[in-house]
Amino acid sequence: MKTTFNEELFLTNETGRQLYHTYAEKLPIIDYHCHLQPKEIAENKEFEDLGELWLSGDHYKWRAMRTFGIEERLITGDADYHEKFLAFASILPKLIGNPIYIWCALELKRYFEIDDPVSEKNAEEIYQKTKALIREKHITRRWCMEHSDVRLVSTTEDPIDPLSWHKQMNSETMYTRVITAFRPDKAMFLELPSFDEYLKKLAEAAEVKINSFSELLSALEKRLKYFKEVTGTTVSDDGIPHFTWADYTMEEIEQIFQKARRNEKLTALEEDQYRSAFLYEMGRIYHRNGYVMQLHIGTYLDANTTGVKNVGQSTGFDCTDDQASVTSVGELLNRLTIAGELPKTILYPLDGTKIETWAVLAAGFCDNGTKAKVQLGAPWWFNDQQYGIARQFAACANLYPISLSIGMLTDSRSFISYPRHELYRRVLCNYFGELVERGEYFSGEEELGRIIEDICFNNVNEFFGFGIRR
Amino acid sequence: MKTTFNEELFLTNETGRQLYHTYAEKLPIIDYHCHLQPKEIAENKEFEDLGELWLSGDHYKWRAMRTFGIEERLITGDADYHEKFLAFASILPKLIGNPIYIWCALELKRYFEIDDPVSEKNAEEIYQKTKALIREKHITRRWCMEHSDVRLVSTTEDPIDPLSWHKQMNSETMYTRVITAFRPDKAMFLELPSFDEYLKKLAEAAEVKINSFSELLSALEKRLKYFKEVTGTTVSDDGIPHFTWADYTMEEIEQIFQKARRNEKLTALEEDQYRSAFLYEMGRIYHRNGYVMQLHIGTYLDANTTGVKNVGQSTGFDCTDDQASVTSVGELLNRLTIAGELPKTILYPLDGTKIETWAVLAAGFCDNGTKAKVQLGAPWWFNDQQYGIARQFAACANLYPISLSIGMLTDSRSFISYPRHELYRRVLCNYFGELVERGEYFSGEEELGRIIEDICFNNVNEFFGFGIRR
Amino acid sequence: MKTTFNEELFLTNETGRQLYHTYAEKLPIIDYHCHLQPKEIAENKEFEDLGELWLSGDHYKWRAMRTFGIEERLITGDADYHEKFLAFASILPKLIGNPIYIWCALELKRYFEIDDPVSEKNAEEIYQKTKALIREKHITRRWCMEHSDVRLVSTTEDPIDPLSWHKQMNSETMYTRVITAFRPDKAMFLELPSFDEYLKKLAEAAEVKINSFSELLSALEKRLKYFKEVTGTTVSDDGIPHFTWADYTMEEIEQIFQKARRNEKLTALEEDQYRSAFLYEMGRIYHRNGYVMQLHIGTYLDANTTGVKNVGQSTGFDCTDDQASVTSVGELLNRLTIAGELPKTILYPLDGTKIETWAVLAAGFCDNGTKAKVQLGAPWWFNDQQYGIARQFAACANLYPISLSIGMLTDSRSFISYPRHELYRRVLCNYFGELVERGEYFSGEEELGRIIEDICFNNVNEFFGFGIRR
Repeated sequence: MKTTFNEELFLTNETGRQLYHTYAEKLPIIDYHCHLQPKEIAENKEFEDLGELWLSGDHYKWRAMRTFGIEERLITGDADYHEKFLAFASILPKLIGNPIYIWCALELKRYFEIDDPVSEKNAEEIYQKTKALIREKHITRRWCMEHSDVRLVSTTEDPIDPLSWHKQMNSETMYTRVITAFRPDKAMFLELPSFDEYLKKLAEAAEVKINSFSELLSALEKRLKYFKEVTGTTVSDDGIPHFTWADYTMEEIEQIFQKARRNEKLTALEEDQYRSAFLYEMGRIYHRNGYVMQLHIGTYLDANTTGVKNVGQSTGFDCTDDQASVTSVGELLNRLTIAGELPKTILYPLDGTKIETWAVLAAGFCDNGTKAKVQLGAPWWFNDQQYGIARQFAACANLYPISLSIGMLTDSRSFISYPRHELYRRVLCNYFGELVERGEYFSGEEELGRIIEDICFNNVNEFFGFGIRR
Repeated sequence: MKTTFNEELFLTNETGRQLYHTYAEKLPIIDYHCHLQPKEIAENKEFEDLGELWLSGDHYKWRAMRTFGIEERLITGDADYHEKFLAFASILPKLIGNPIYIWCALELKRYFEIDDPVSEKNAEEIYQKTKALIREKHITRRWCMEHSDVRLVSTTEDPIDPLSWHKQMNSETMYTRVITAFRPDKAMFLELPSFDEYLKKLAEAAEVKINSFSELLSALEKRLKYFKEVTGTTVSDDGIPHFTWADYTMEEIEQIFQKARRNEKLTALEEDQYRSAFLYEMGRIYHRNGYVMQLHIGTYLDANTTGVKNVGQSTGFDCTDDQASVTSVGELLNRLTIAGELPKTILYPLDGTKIETWAVLAAGFCDNGTKAKVQLGAPWWFNDQQYGIARQFAACANLYPISLSIGMLTDSRSFISYPRHELYRRVLCNYFGELVERGEYFSGEEELGRIIEDICFNNVNEFFGFGIRR
Repeated sequence: MKTTFNEELFLTNETGRQLYHTYAEKLPIIDYHCHLQPKEIAENKEFEDLGELWLSGDHYKWRAMRTFGIEERLITGDADYHEKFLAFASILPKLIGNPIYIWCALELKRYFEIDDPVSEKNAEEIYQKTKALIREKHITRRWCMEHSDVRLVSTTEDPIDPLSWHKQMNSETMYTRVITAFRPDKAMFLELPSFDEYLKKLAEAAEVKINSFSELLSALEKRLKYFKEVTGTTVSDDGIPHFTWADYTMEEIEQIFQKARRNEKLTALEEDQYRSAFLYEMGRIYHRNGYVMQLHIGTYLDANTTGVKNVGQSTGFDCTDDQASVTSVGELLNRLTIAGELPKTILYPLDGTKIETWAVLAAGFCDNGTKAKVQLGAPWWFNDQQYGIARQFAACANLYPISLSIGMLTDSRSFISYPRHELYRRVLCNYFGELVERGEYFSGEEELGRIIEDICFNNVNEFFGFGIRR
């Protein structure tokens, strides 16, 4: 039984191995959606240690640690990163089948040339070795991005963000281009007590008054233009938790808007109407400003409210909504199509068990003249691992041409999560290899090589209009 | 990397290969549900070219072409089939993993002896070669059916259809028996503006008055008896888009029926009540007339209404409803069972991701004295490909005896889609081979051979009472 | 083609084979949830024949027999076990892909050393051979349990059960420890006409008055303490058919309770409110009494009411509810967490197609200080077979550490169903072997061996606090 990192990871057939090493392995990375902090990229400090690298912001690992009953102090609490690292290392060998296991292995291999599996026994040694390497090689934020040949990253900011760090980076020559996604979620969550306060901040940022829904839209569009002006971005990001399409009139929406500002209790119908109107109008705004609409669908946010109260939002207490409906998002796409204002759209459904129904939906809104107008995004969050990715390839290539896919993104808070692109590419090549070996594809290696390069680099570059040279 | 068609397609294990070539490969075909035009079979013209064969009615291909941004003129527009063929050929090598790729490969191999993959480069050559072969061999509609050893096809007609072409064919000696399925969907879609007009046509066809729901049922039953009289059919076909069982009284149904005829707006409850009543009563009619009830469940029809408006219904703008509920169809089966009037039934759920819950439902309504009374149909529409078929075998053999399955159908508008039976049989034999090779089945080859012949030919012949000799 | 039982069953890779034979094969069994009759264990009679062993209480087999159209007399009717066995044997070779096939094969091999597949031809011979062996070896209920090295079984009883047989067994020295699960479902099904009558029996058993919901809870808790006192159990068992969380006040619940006792018609909301309150309060009771809460979620009970009427409940006419919602169970867990009274919990969703959304939910309610506080149970009922188990491993190890799993249970009415543990262990080791062979795990054999022993024995022993020595 092999006990070191395997360069043929995931590659179970000869054709897949050949395809990976010949076409996919060396391609640069465009990471078009992530949650890196622009401040960190701009300041570009060296990392403290592997504890910081692995545990400072990774709710996947926090969540796994909690399942083992580890005390919160060693997870998100006031223990130092050394202690946290040792606590995490003690469970790592138990994480068989979990993407955390292989992510960690890939990260150690690619950034620190470590082949051995981490365990309680060698944890201290690995901690010290990686710490020394960080110092020796001056491993900073940008070092990681360059080391992985990342040509572009898109961070994610709220419309009220002044984009000061992005502006500062604009004045520098950087290997990795940094843009940002426009994420107006807080203007959609009208049921939150903070809605009114948020709108005030937004009004200030946009330097306009917001006394109506239509003024809210104007403010958002003004900021969206600003985002494009500053970073050249064409990326947006909308989250859709539980959502049922509901017809509305603009009069109704204006009334609902006023009620929400006064923090009055809204009915479920009113919330659905507002969300329907909001997403529809944002779609129009994206369309006329040349943005791509990214819809993250079906989150069951803050499921464990006690966990959120004690530790915070987005720290491992979210789950998957199994009721997010294809037909509601379908109606949104349909209305925008009727209006002739459907932007390029990417669907990221969180419930991977229904992935095919979403692929079918995407294909139904294709559009003459635009390649892959609406497409299914890479497996997201809980689905972002070998099983989820392999399933999406096998299940959805049947329903939507995989050769048009814009490939992988990390959606990550970590600067060393780029091997997830490697993981995706390995699984992709293995899938193609299987098709070839069972006779299901025989158009030859040249064609296949082109498809792989398209999926891993060219398609996304073209879809968003990034214009990155390879 | 092999670049020609592979006769061991899909067969990844030795036992599967042996089973396929020994038992499945040579069996004749009963295609008990398709959308061929009886006029075309009757007239039996030669095809124009491969463009017509591939692109005249195939919304799978149209849909795929649209995802590549190809202009509609080259898809369903006024370009000629030569041009359309070249446009399609240019994307074919990109359709890796899509069933269209392997369907095309199988069709070229089986009907034209072509082993090479189609590409932009050889498209013209293949076009000319196949065109010459069509002329040389006089490849007509019936030629294709005979070439694939098709012993019976069932087309699908509306109750108002006079069945003139079927009558004409009755007077001929044909290799392939042609019957039709009775498809009363238009009498169920009471929410459509055309409902009243349709009922008038139906009244005319049935030569009765239709002034009530019960008179509608009488008219339908009269036509259904006519369908059986003319073609000897026992096949029906009902589509169930989104549907929630709702209790009703016959008085309510009669009122809803009158409202619908007057084109008044119906509530969602009224629509559900009407559909519940309609399907229940049709089930009774099928039962007393010895028909099999085929339920196609969970379509999200006309999702993209702009596409439908521009190009037409059933041209690639339908999707999958992820909310069609097992319990509603379950209540329909339950009510018919209580009444002692449940016909033989086949369930075709469109949402393949929930296939197991439907298999479980089918098994719950088995009936002493009838073999496989309610069964799960072959993977349908979006699921009709290697992945969907393999998943259904692996997921559902556990829940419902696969040896009782009535096997594959094309559901197709194409005269050269019979290799889909071959595809199904290959995947079936491969699945059985895997079971044998991992020790999960060891009752021997003779038994297995019988099961394969049952699934591919005998079961369906017996289930519908076709009485075809092998 | 091999035609005898294969000791490498399910093991398709070398690493998996080695892991199974080295670590899993010999481990004893803790069967922490089953439906054995305590009377039968206590009386410990010899079995009559293989007909009784296989067909006396197995609704899986009954259901399969009905799909073949076999008359009910030979299934659950008055035919003798010899006849029933022959009827069943005649379809067994047709059950390819069905777990019944391989369960039967494993049972014949493990309890009777029979390697041959059963068929119509050898059915009588096998019947006589096994009958002779039962006599010769005095194969009794306990013999089967000891033969399979079963160290503990937990039966399932209603709160009104006096536990007389359990008490009697307490006074004996037995190889297999016998406890029982506390199953208060009948106090939850307030919509049944028998609700009032049941409460009277419960009041009697608990020797208290039950004139209110809160008195009902007291009675249940009293019985639950009694169950623990008599058998030392920490196991509960709640069934959740279709369920939507609904907020309530205790006043509302008391009113609903009174309406239900008077057998008045309840609204759907009232039923949901009552179930929400009931499950919440039972959770609190389990928590303060150190019980584990087992939730069996999403049954579509008595789908075929005619079958139930003719043959009885739990005889093969239940199906799967595809609408049971993650968010409703999530709210139950959330409320209990807010109260600080969430017990250790195991989720058993019946709809295997959505298994990942449940794994994600479980992980969201992990708790500092408790290992695997909320976990996903082994695949249940319709999912309890190679496909369901392999899917759960592959799909959910990504979402919840599989190394913390408490492994398999039979949930069975049969004394020879223990090879289902073997089946589970084989599939587990095969899965781990695949991970190792594709480079996805490389922490070595020692670690893997420990994980296997944990999953198959140690975790469950610790989770319930059984204190069984290996």
